[in-house]
Amino acid sequence: MPHTAPRLARIEPFHVMRILGEAQALAASGRDVIHLEVGEPDFPTPQPVIDAGIAALQTGKTFYTGACGLPELREAIAGFYRERLGAAVTADRVIVTPGASGALQLILALLVGRDDEVLLTDPGYPCNRHLVSLLEGRPVNIPVDARSNFQLTPELIRSHSSARTVATLLASPANPTGTVLDVDEIKILQDVCNQNQQQLIVDEIYQGLVYDSPHTTALTASDQLFVVNSFSKFFQMTGWRLGWLVAPEWAVADLEKLAQNLFLAPPTTAQHAALAAFRPDTLAILEQRRQELQARRNYLQHALGQLGLIVQARPEGAFYLWLDCRRFTNDAEQFARELLHAEAVAVTPGRDFGDQGSAYSIRIAYSQPINRLEEAITRIGRHLRNYCAAA
Amino acid sequence: MPHTAPRLARIEPFHVMRILGEAQALAASGRDVIHLEVGEPDFPTPQPVIDAGIAALQTGKTFYTGACGLPELREAIAGFYRERLGAAVTADRVIVTPGASGALQLILALLVGRDDEVLLTDPGYPCNRHLVSLLEGRPVNIPVDARSNFQLTPELIRSHSSARTVATLLASPANPTGTVLDVDEIKILQDVCNQNQQQLIVDEIYQGLVYDSPHTTALTASDQLFVVNSFSKFFQMTGWRLGWLVAPEWAVADLEKLAQNLFLAPPTTAQHAALAAFRPDTLAILEQRRQELQARRNYLQHALGQLGLIVQARPEGAFYLWLDCRRFTNDAEQFARELLHAEAVAVTPGRDFGDQGSAYSIRIAYSQPINRLEEAITRIGRHLRNYCAAA
Ligand SMILES: Cc1ncc(COP(=O)(O)O)c(C=O)c1O
Ligand SMILES: Cc1ncc(COP(=O)(O)O)c(C=O)c1O
Repeated sequence: MPHTAPRLARIEPFHVMRILGEAQALAASGRDVIHLEVGEPDFPTPQPVIDAGIAALQTGKTFYTGACGLPELREAIAGFYRERLGAAVTADRVIVTPGASGALQLILALLVGRDDEVLLTDPGYPCNRHLVSLLEGRPVNIPVDARSNFQLTPELIRSHSSARTVATLLASPANPTGTVLDVDEIKILQDVCNQNQQQLIVDEIYQGLVYDSPHTTALTASDQLFVVNSFSKFFQMTGWRLGWLVAPEWAVADLEKLAQNLFLAPPTTAQHAALAAFRPDTLAILEQRRQELQARRNYLQHALGQLGLIVQARPEGAFYLWLDCRRFTNDAEQFARELLHAEAVAVTPGRDFGDQGSAYSIRIAYSQPINRLEEAITRIGRHLRNYCAAA
Repeated sequence: MPHTAPRLARIEPFHVMRILGEAQALAASGRDVIHLEVGEPDFPTPQPVIDAGIAALQTGKTFYTGACGLPELREAIAGFYRERLGAAVTADRVIVTPGASGALQLILALLVGRDDEVLLTDPGYPCNRHLVSLLEGRPVNIPVDARSNFQLTPELIRSHSSARTVATLLASPANPTGTVLDVDEIKILQDVCNQNQQQLIVDEIYQGLVYDSPHTTALTASDQLFVVNSFSKFFQMTGWRLGWLVAPEWAVADLEKLAQNLFLAPPTTAQHAALAAFRPDTLAILEQRRQELQARRNYLQHALGQLGLIVQARPEGAFYLWLDCRRFTNDAEQFARELLHAEAVAVTPGRDFGDQGSAYSIRIAYSQPINRLEEAITRIGRHLRNYCAAA
């Protein structure tokens, strides 16, 4: 085997792909699989956005744009912050990227030198720790649980910081738990980061998908933190690969040169299409869908609890429930595989998201219509009964 | 100024953006600017590809695909190698990426650990050395000139290799020179790399844009090298951000896990559109355009020579001429700026491409129709006469 970079030993594949592969094979063999494992909304991209994409193609918008994106899109994003979220963001602080993935990579490439440390939650979004490893930095995975609603606290940040810590990366709403930090909490965490010469990065990719609190942004707390966002989730444009970041002024020129070298530019048609994402007709569609997601969450949270699958974090946002399955298993991967083969319901075992509680946790994405969720609950209930009867 | 990663000091912005900015300001003020500075063909994406993209949007192809791309696109790319280029490539060795940019990043992330060295040509494509720095590796920029047709030779590779050298990265056809290596030459270079425990990466992004030799691929030389390619240049899909790589079998699983974590997936609509790129009607359009580029090259090479601007490399491919302007200047950046302001012709000063000869070299992209190139020649001729008269 030829030599590869040592970082490869620290970077893991998405383990859920094995479950997904088995689920696809089952579906191909004729089984009616209910997919609750995929981290994307089941809604198609809103029609006004599709139409704008088609119009862009019809008018030959197929050339490179500048590395930071179309000026009018940067302005539209800044306007969204100002008008809808009350944050004084200017267009020059907005950089359009290939997904939130691209935004996370740019910010980490700016901040993380070799052996520099980045504080992360465990459980958390799997790519984060691997992006830190890519850059030869060290992810510091901080175990979190229900006591802090699966988020970081000032104490956790302080006690895990070292002279090498350069950044703390949070998500609100979070993946896989759906928990939310309010702006006051973020402000406090930012002050702690600043006292420790760290930057705070807030991943707001699930922004807007909140059910118990108003739609807010960390940017109302400060213009000195980094915010990551995307058209993938709230705007339901996953396959378009378009996101953005908002940076403090001082960081923009460096981020731009990184964007030039890493990506050249974000996708052009997607950028033209995204100009329609902020239109009132699009936002009305998205608000309807948010309400639909809320109804699904309410239904599932209750129904799963009835079955003895406990939602271990307050799922105030995103479209995930993080379940404690200890009553039934201490091997969530095995449990997920059995559920798939017995009842054709696909869920994500905890392992991808970290070590903390992952052996007994699964993530359920409520990315199916209510009637399918009802069917899923019937199947899961039957499985658990058979499971207990067999044990 | 807050702490940033030390690599930022080694990563440069695209200096040509300053010229581009000035050119855009001139155009906005009403001047008729001739753009010979941009690295993309002036042709719009071929209509069958546009139509396939529109159809994909109309049928709701807006969700994530797998990290390595649509199976049918991987198969279509492999089929292109087998049927058109005579290389026995299987679909599982093809990974679809966000541009050649994404492919270069994946391969380097696989191979380059901290302080590992990668051999590159100087002049060469600017992003390569910065992608190596991103990963905490060390780019080794090897000065090349007309003696080796601006490509590496076995002697150059041997004399610049060290125990830390993990890869050699070439481009054929090359940017900024347009020079081409034939398959026999590549085979020899690969043998040298292998003797030195290095991997060979061949960037074939300008494949198919060749004017004096048949359309070939390094993959006919060996299945143990890495090939980078893209829909950007030959297929004229720059803004779609879609490329691919072909890897040796042993590397595929590791590249897939990197792709999952870095990008999640390449853009979906672009992938569906690209399925139409290999159709006979598309390929017929592209062949016509290739002939048009050849005619432009022939015209410009002759006309620039007449003006005393010497094409210093054999421009057998891509759409670039690498000019020696020593008769007129030793400050190519100043020269480019004066040409822009005096005659509204925009060209790229050598600096972005490296140090070797860059003070007196400029790159001209023949990405304008012949009648515009004729006008450019008239203007450049006038400028050079005034320039010499003033000196
Ligand atoms: C928390 C979080 N951040 C970032 C991303 C990346 O998304 P994208 O690159 O599609 O914007 C995801 C995707 O699932 C996510 O869950
Ligand atoms: C030699 C070379 N490689 C790679 C690229 C990246 O192109 P893309 O990411 O659009 O495929 C370019 C673009 O100009 C190039 O010239």
